[in-house]
Amino acid sequence: MTIAQWTSRIPSLDMEAGEKAAAYIDNLTKPPGSLGRLETIAAKLAAMTGNPFPEVTPAGVLVFASDHGVTAEGISAFPQEITVQMAKNFLKKGAAINVFANQINADFQLIDIGMAKEVNENGIISRKIKAGTANFCKEDAMTRDEAVQAIQAGFEEAEKMIARKGIKCLILGEMGIGNTTASSAMISAFTNKNPASVTGPGTGLTEERILHKQHILQTALQNRNINAHDPLDILAKVGGLEIAGITGAMLAAAAHRVPILVDGFISAAAAVTAQALSQLAADYMFVGHYSTEPGHAIAINILDKKPLLDLQMRLGEGSGAALAFPILRSACAMVREMATFDDLANY
Amino acid sequence: MTIAQWTSRIPSLDMEAGEKAAAYIDNLTKPPGSLGRLETIAAKLAAMTGNPFPEVTPAGVLVFASDHGVTAEGISAFPQEITVQMAKNFLKKGAAINVFANQINADFQLIDIGMAKEVNENGIISRKIKAGTANFCKEDAMTRDEAVQAIQAGFEEAEKMIARKGIKCLILGEMGIGNTTASSAMISAFTNKNPASVTGPGTGLTEERILHKQHILQTALQNRNINAHDPLDILAKVGGLEIAGITGAMLAAAAHRVPILVDGFISAAAAVTAQALSQLAADYMFVGHYSTEPGHAIAINILDKKPLLDLQMRLGEGSGAALAFPILRSACAMVREMATFDDLANY
Repeated sequence: MTIAQWTSRIPSLDMEAGEKAAAYIDNLTKPPGSLGRLETIAAKLAAMTGNPFPEVTPAGVLVFASDHGVTAEGISAFPQEITVQMAKNFLKKGAAINVFANQINADFQLIDIGMAKEVNENGIISRKIKAGTANFCKEDAMTRDEAVQAIQAGFEEAEKMIARKGIKCLILGEMGIGNTTASSAMISAFTNKNPASVTGPGTGLTEERILHKQHILQTALQNRNINAHDPLDILAKVGGLEIAGITGAMLAAAAHRVPILVDGFISAAAAVTAQALSQLAADYMFVGHYSTEPGHAIAINILDKKPLLDLQMRLGEGSGAALAFPILRSACAMVREMATFDDLANY
Repeated sequence: MTIAQWTSRIPSLDMEAGEKAAAYIDNLTKPPGSLGRLETIAAKLAAMTGNPFPEVTPAGVLVFASDHGVTAEGISAFPQEITVQMAKNFLKKGAAINVFANQINADFQLIDIGMAKEVNENGIISRKIKAGTANFCKEDAMTRDEAVQAIQAGFEEAEKMIARKGIKCLILGEMGIGNTTASSAMISAFTNKNPASVTGPGTGLTEERILHKQHILQTALQNRNINAHDPLDILAKVGGLEIAGITGAMLAAAAHRVPILVDGFISAAAAVTAQALSQLAADYMFVGHYSTEPGHAIAINILDKKPLLDLQMRLGEGSGAALAFPILRSACAMVREMATFDDLANY
């Protein structure tokens, strides 16, 4: 399959269903417009799903784990071993995303798309493209072909989850020490901004180490000779395997009219990539929350989305998206369950 | 009972439980601080409840309905009859607050604390103080004694719900055509601000009718000779029976260490009143959302709280607070269910 074959499967929004929902919402027992964004969210969900009475349950959470060669440059507050430890934590249901996925009764699946080490435990799906990316300070993170393979893996796993579990809203998360560095490099490349404006503390760097991370990013971007108009070139040269996997999963969700909840910075970098591959893909996205990682604001500006929550979070894993999910669910319940003024007249 | 007897029952926050929770949260499997406000919310809930592993489920929703004599002045986009119609809608589970209460598995109770007409249907609790307030443009909305009775009714109904259903988080809502006018008058009186800066469209006034509402409020405040340092005087002269009921319910929740979720403008006016009666009461409050009604920002400024959601809503009924509840629930789940770094070392 080629990227074009996947993106060609993404339908346009069903504007008629959206308008039907909006008109119906105006007749619910409340002053018109008084439920604010919840009303526009519901109409948007109707347009995405093609159903004036949309549903988003059950939700599904796909977490892609992988490693980053650039960690050799000392750009993270945590060592690479944490990726494997956190993968085990996901399998034991001890991580934040497990807890929040459980709160919303979401299906959860962890995918090894490129961890440096193996986790031989039940519950993890192996779609490993390779054992971590190369250090993009010195060479391309992956080949163009590997980037396409990782997108394909994400696309296929999302399709499987949607088909087997009847997932009606897809939440994408990630684990990969070093992945804010890759995301910063990607967003710098997409926007031609100096990495300094797109670089933040990630899991918790000091000011001094943020400067080092910026320096590494500047060096990498100078050395990689990126074509800013080619999202696959950006992804392959300075991206990550989990970012590619999320990109593919987003394309699959859009192809199936399944609303996508974008999480923080890494997830937003994938969303920007998916949008660059197909403008239609972005029509199926909501952004769950504002991350405090500075590159996130730049990424959501490219996506032209206003996040649902602002809780000053920066964890990733899909945690902020899972926390925002009840807002989508309540928007659907509003349309499906509230009485209309016609009902009221008959009481 | 006197107000002082109720407020004397409100305990100070348990700072030790709060600090214990904060220290424990720092050892959960995530970078310290990366869950942002969710971490401070959890520690605050621990201090409120006295439990380092706090719980907020089940939640309870108490909706107080009453009428306002000032509607005779044409200050609302809807006629007074809507109060009764919406009360029936609450009983049929067709209103927004019913739908959102159902989403969070909350117990729901409607209380007639002063509707102009009777609703003789199952499911409503009658604690009617009188059949609507007087028109405060011409006379005091109620006597001081009626205000105290309404606070008592709210206090007792909240205590009952907490005791019978084991409610661990209280959401207060209201229905009463004209109640943004009463709330604007109260917040003007509390802050000594010109009513013009505290007056908004309510359920949907035109610009011209907002000016009329401001004029009515100016007249009322000139005529009522309010003592701005006496919250009971403000409540009695220009308040509402549902606002008094919510005030009492908030005092009861605080007395029982039950966290309070404040909704929009009317609920915030009651919260300001409760705080004026007892500064400790405000320690048990979260504000669910930013309302677009302009007086809300002034009220939450007095409360010194940052709302959890900003969805451009202005419906009332407790709807914005119910939508925010999953954030509190997830904060509790984070503390109770996430693994610690000690756990991780043993995997």
